Amino acid sequence: MTEIPKNHPRYESLMAREQIVAGVEKGMTSRQGLIAQGRGEAFDYLIGENTTEGAAYAEAVAVCLLLLAENPVISVNGNAAALAAAELVMLSQLTGAKLEVNLFHRTDERVKKIIGELKENGADVVLGENAEPLLPLEHERAKVERDGIFDADVVFVPLEDGDRCQVLTDMKKLVIAIDLNPLSRTAQTAHVSIVDNLKRALPNMIDMIPEFRNMNEEDLWEIVDAYDNNVVLMDAIETMKENLTAKQNEILGIDEDSDKNDGKPDETGGKRSGNDKRNAEREEARRNARIQRNAETARKVMMRGGDLMME
Amino acid sequence: MTEIPKNHPRYESLMAREQIVAGVEKGMTSRQGLIAQGRGEAFDYLIGENTTEGAAYAEAVAVCLLLLAENPVISVNGNAAALAAAELVMLSQLTGAKLEVNLFHRTDERVKKIIGELKENGADVVLGENAEPLLPLEHERAKVERDGIFDADVVFVPLEDGDRCQVLTDMKKLVIAIDLNPLSRTAQTAHVSIVDNLKRALPNMIDMIPEFRNMNEEDLWEIVDAYDNNVVLMDAIETMKENLTAKQNEILGIDEDSDKNDGKPDETGGKRSGNDKRNAEREEARRNARIQRNAETARKVMMRGGDLMME
Repeated sequence: MTEIPKNHPRYESLMAREQIVAGVEKGMTSRQGLIAQGRGEAFDYLIGENTTEGAAYAEAVAVCLLLLAENPVISVNGNAAALAAAELVMLSQLTGAKLEVNLFHRTDERVKKIIGELKENGADVVLGENAEPLLPLEHERAKVERDGIFDADVVFVPLEDGDRCQVLTDMKKLVIAIDLNPLSRTAQTAHVSIVDNLKRALPNMIDMIPEFRNMNEEDLWEIVDAYDNNVVLMDAIETMKENLTAKQNEILGIDEDSDKNDGKPDETGGKRSGNDKRNAEREEARRNARIQRNAETARKVMMRGGDLMME
Repeated sequence: MTEIPKNHPRYESLMAREQIVAGVEKGMTSRQGLIAQGRGEAFDYLIGENTTEGAAYAEAVAVCLLLLAENPVISVNGNAAALAAAELVMLSQLTGAKLEVNLFHRTDERVKKIIGELKENGADVVLGENAEPLLPLEHERAKVERDGIFDADVVFVPLEDGDRCQVLTDMKKLVIAIDLNPLSRTAQTAHVSIVDNLKRALPNMIDMIPEFRNMNEEDLWEIVDAYDNNVVLMDAIETMKENLTAKQNEILGIDEDSDKNDGKPDETGGKRSGNDKRNAEREEARRNARIQRNAETARKVMMRGGDLMME
């Protein structure tokens, strides 16, 4: 793996990227998994790379459901194994959920590699090798184990595809999904949609287990019943809009503390003659005027009052 | 390449993904390129997978700048070559811009492969093999050709990294970037930021050339001078916010035409007995009540008046 300094502003995101690339090298993660990781990065950036209040709520409800379930199963794909094998194993052990490898681009080799990775991280039994085409989907994607996902009452699917999520809910299973895209079909279809990074969501959930483990079933069901997935989705989208507005304000704000921007040292270096200095001042004045104009027009666009196109 | 039906709702996006994977197989595109493609997909989805008015404006200004430039250079990386080799060659021929292969994860082998791809698509000369470390960046990323990007007055960089974009503007070059992420450092640093998919932007630009080719320099400069990059960025972010709001309304709209959702055929199939029918009606009433509540709470969240967390 490439060495990334811990103080890099995007350390977490870059580390995750390295883990996914390592997953490809280990033969666990597919090329499509790399593209999916990129999509996730973009949505995570928009969500603020933080667990929102709504996501924490969904994570709590997910823990309740896993504790309530009679036959919960955690579905594991190549990206999940590359990013959080140890956390998946721990969640499985603490909730009694089975682990089942379930791949969109399934090959027996990748299934074996992922099972190996989970076992290296402490898993005892991992399902997936004896999968049969039991779901109403085309052959390879239809495969699940009879004692695993097929019989499960609650399925926890970090990073699932929309079709399969739909099929699982049609089979009356309760589906918990982790998906950073609140607009995805998976997020819209699952019963509990955790709009959070897998690498934040799983440790959060593990931390929450002691709080819920000793509650009686009735209290747990009360929490689950009160949960409203649309509210959580709405909240995630709202957070993205707020972050986009903050970015707009940041761009517009340039003129409000322009001295901060213009006060930075001249990058060409060296001392300036009097002439150079006057030129520089003129240049600065011009730039300020331009920035001023930008901010004014940009504000109009934010209000959708401006006419963008040249005539 | 996987066969994708032309009528698939996400045909363009899936085709691009296949092209990028093919680029990796050909040795042109890096694994990081796959992740970058995923990020692009997410932002393209938010922008509506369409050329916005603001993007069309930026594309027009980019064409003017390429026509005005004395030594314009089109920088080509592995993703650009995988997605639009023919269009890059055509743009180069119609504007007189040189082509230079310039990679973030540079290897001589990848440079050669990309040059080969561009030549197969009709390019005569492609720079990049004789690059020297001329930019103030660490060794590999510093490499550009002296007669190419180093001497260029206008550099067109589809899919550039932020550091290098900054260095090029510091060198007083005019930089045109294509970047679907209006929040990226590249988009914020370039003089003209085209927030559009490469595969839409390049054909648009090629189509615009006849309109501008016969204009005199003064008129072209007038168009360039009137251009305001912040307005275009603001517009792109605004479009994303609007699309997110539309999605929220779609989720909230469930109750407004609930008969559309509830009228769909019962997926369990078969005829219902009178008892079943009464149960189904009760079930439907319950579901409607729940949906109603969802919409109400969700509206509150949109107004940020609701309290999400359970007590």
